[in-house]
Amino acid sequence: MTTPLLLRAARGESVERPPIWLMRQAGRYMKVYRDLRDRYPSFRQRSEIPELAIEISLQPFRAFAPDGVILFSDILTPLPGIGIPFDIVESKGPIIDPPIRTFEQVQQLHSLEPEAACPFIRPILSTLRQEVGDRATVLGFAGAPWTLAAYAIEGKSSKDYIEIKTMAYREPELLHKFLNHLATAIADYLCYQIDCGAQVVQLFDSWAGQLSRQDYDTFAFPYQKQVVQQVKAVYPDVPIILYINGSAAVVDRMAATGADIVSLDWTVDIGTIRQQFPASVGLQGNLDPVMLFAPQPVLKERALGIIEAGRKGKYIFNLGHGVLQGTPEENVGFLFDLVKSLG
Amino acid sequence: MTTPLLLRAARGESVERPPIWLMRQAGRYMKVYRDLRDRYPSFRQRSEIPELAIEISLQPFRAFAPDGVILFSDILTPLPGIGIPFDIVESKGPIIDPPIRTFEQVQQLHSLEPEAACPFIRPILSTLRQEVGDRATVLGFAGAPWTLAAYAIEGKSSKDYIEIKTMAYREPELLHKFLNHLATAIADYLCYQIDCGAQVVQLFDSWAGQLSRQDYDTFAFPYQKQVVQQVKAVYPDVPIILYINGSAAVVDRMAATGADIVSLDWTVDIGTIRQQFPASVGLQGNLDPVMLFAPQPVLKERALGIIEAGRKGKYIFNLGHGVLQGTPEENVGFLFDLVKSLG
Repeated sequence: MTTPLLLRAARGESVERPPIWLMRQAGRYMKVYRDLRDRYPSFRQRSEIPELAIEISLQPFRAFAPDGVILFSDILTPLPGIGIPFDIVESKGPIIDPPIRTFEQVQQLHSLEPEAACPFIRPILSTLRQEVGDRATVLGFAGAPWTLAAYAIEGKSSKDYIEIKTMAYREPELLHKFLNHLATAIADYLCYQIDCGAQVVQLFDSWAGQLSRQDYDTFAFPYQKQVVQQVKAVYPDVPIILYINGSAAVVDRMAATGADIVSLDWTVDIGTIRQQFPASVGLQGNLDPVMLFAPQPVLKERALGIIEAGRKGKYIFNLGHGVLQGTPEENVGFLFDLVKSLG
Repeated sequence: MTTPLLLRAARGESVERPPIWLMRQAGRYMKVYRDLRDRYPSFRQRSEIPELAIEISLQPFRAFAPDGVILFSDILTPLPGIGIPFDIVESKGPIIDPPIRTFEQVQQLHSLEPEAACPFIRPILSTLRQEVGDRATVLGFAGAPWTLAAYAIEGKSSKDYIEIKTMAYREPELLHKFLNHLATAIADYLCYQIDCGAQVVQLFDSWAGQLSRQDYDTFAFPYQKQVVQQVKAVYPDVPIILYINGSAAVVDRMAATGADIVSLDWTVDIGTIRQQFPASVGLQGNLDPVMLFAPQPVLKERALGIIEAGRKGKYIFNLGHGVLQGTPEENVGFLFDLVKSLG
C-alpha cells in the first residue's frame, strides 16, 4: 500500500501536485447531506452515530475524491467527556448551559477517557481508513483550548467574547487552570484519534484571531503549543495543522507552536507569508470561500494564483475557512478537478 | 481661541499628551443615552433631529470631557440622499429593501446634495463647535465605499458578504460603477461636514477587513483613496483618519490611501506597526474594547503600554473598535482620566 499524496506532502516530501481538501467539505451545501439531515435532525446524532458520521464523511469523498477525508464531527464533541455537556441547536449553534464561570466548576472537570467518552471515534476513523485506502489521507481534528474555553465560558457563539476576556483580565489563574485542563484533554483526544486511524490532525483555534497580540501570547499560544508538544511526544511523525480564523496579526506565531503546517485564512497574501517562513514550515489555504460562488474562469485564476505562491514550499491547497452554505456543488467539483489536474 | 489638542496632534504638531476620544463614545453603555432612547425609540430620529443628535453627541463630552466629540450619526445616513432608503431596526441593524443588485438600480442613483439631503448636519456640527469651543475637536465621519456598498447590496448586516463578493466576481464593472458613485457622494458628504464645522473626519471601512488582499486592492483601496483625494483637493489641511476593522492583513496599505492617520483594530501590536510606518504617518488606537470590562489596574497597564508605543510618532489614543454595550461607565471615565493625566 502506497502512502497517500496529502500525507506525503504534509511530511514535506516533494509531491507531483498539491493535495486538496476543503474545510467543511461535508455539510449543508451538499444535497445528499441535506437529505440525510432531514431524516436525522440532531447534529449530535449525525456526528456520534458511527454509520451516520461515516456516511457524511464519505459524501464529499464519493462526489469529489478529495485527497483528504476528515471525520464529520464538531470541535465541541469531546467536551461532555470532561464534564461539560452541550447541545447544538440547528442554525443557532452550540449551547452550553450552565456556562463555565467558577473555580468550583473547573475543579469538578475530569480528565478525558476517550474510549469511554467518545466510543464512536474508533469505528468512524477505522472505517474511513478502510473505505479510502491509499486513495486519500484520513484527518482527525480538535478545537484548541482558547476556542473551546470561549464556547464553554460564553455558553454560546459570541461576537465580542466579553465573558472569557473578562475572566482573562479579572481571574487569569482561573482561566489558565481551565485552559491547561482543556489542553491536556485535547491532546489526549487527538492522540486517541491517531490511535484510531487519523493520519494527520488539525487543531482549530477558530476564535483566537479575536485576541490582542498580548492576550494571544498569554492565553492562546501557550496552550496551542502544549497540545502540539503533548501529541508530538507520543506521535512525533504525525503532521499537525494549526488553523486560526482572522490570524493575520499572529500568523508569525503559529509556526512557533511546533505545528507542521500553518493553515491561513483568506485575508493574507500567501506569497508574502511563504517568504516570511522557512521552506520547512508548511502552509495550507487560502482561497476565500466566497470565491466558490464566482464564475469558473475567475475561480480558476484565483486558485491557480494561490497555488503558484503556496507550492514554493510544503503546501496543501484548501480554502481560508469552511465551505459556505449555499455554495454551488458544481463549483466545488470544478475546484477539485482543477487542482487534481495539475502536474 | 487656541487650537484644541486633538486637532494639533492630528496635524502632527508635538503635543503635551496624547489626545483621547473613543469610537462609539456615545451610545447604549451610557444610562443617559438609554433613557433618551426610551423616549425616542427610532434611531433615525435620534440621529437626524438636530436637538437629539446634539444632545447625544454631548453626553460623553459632559461625562468625560474627551478631546474629540464626534457627531452622533450612522454611516448609512447619507444613503437616502443618493436614492437608497434604509431603516435601522433596534438590535437587528440596518435594513435596505430592496437591496442594490442591478445595473438599472445603480444607473438611477443620483448625486448627493448634502444641504438638501442631510439638512440636520449643519445645525448639529455648528452647535457642537459652539458648545465645545476650544476644549475639544469636533469630528465628522462617513462610511467608506466598500462598506456602504456591502450594506446596500447585502440589504442588511452580513457575516460572509456573499452577495457583494459574488457581484465583484460576476459583474465587476457593475460594482465598480456603484463604488465610484459612492466615493464621489461620500467625499461630497465629508466636504459638507467640514464646511459645517468638522475639524477632523474619519472614514470607516468597517467591512474591508473581510476581503482577500487582491480584492481589497481592487475594490476597497482605490475608493478609499478616491475619497481621501477628493476631500484633500478641497480641504488639504483637514486631517483624515481611516479605520478598518480586521485590518491586520492590509494595514500597510492604509497609509497609502493618503489618509493622515491609520486607526488600528486591537489585534495588531501598535509598537510593531509604529516601526513599519514613517513617523509622519499618524496612528490611532488600539485598546481592545473588552479591556474596559477589566479591573482598573489591568486596564491602566494595558492602556499605558499602548500609549508608550503609539506616542513615538503622531498619535491619538482610542479603542480598536467601538465601546461595547454593557461597558461600565466608571471604567470609561477612569480611562479618560488616565490619559488626560499624562504629561
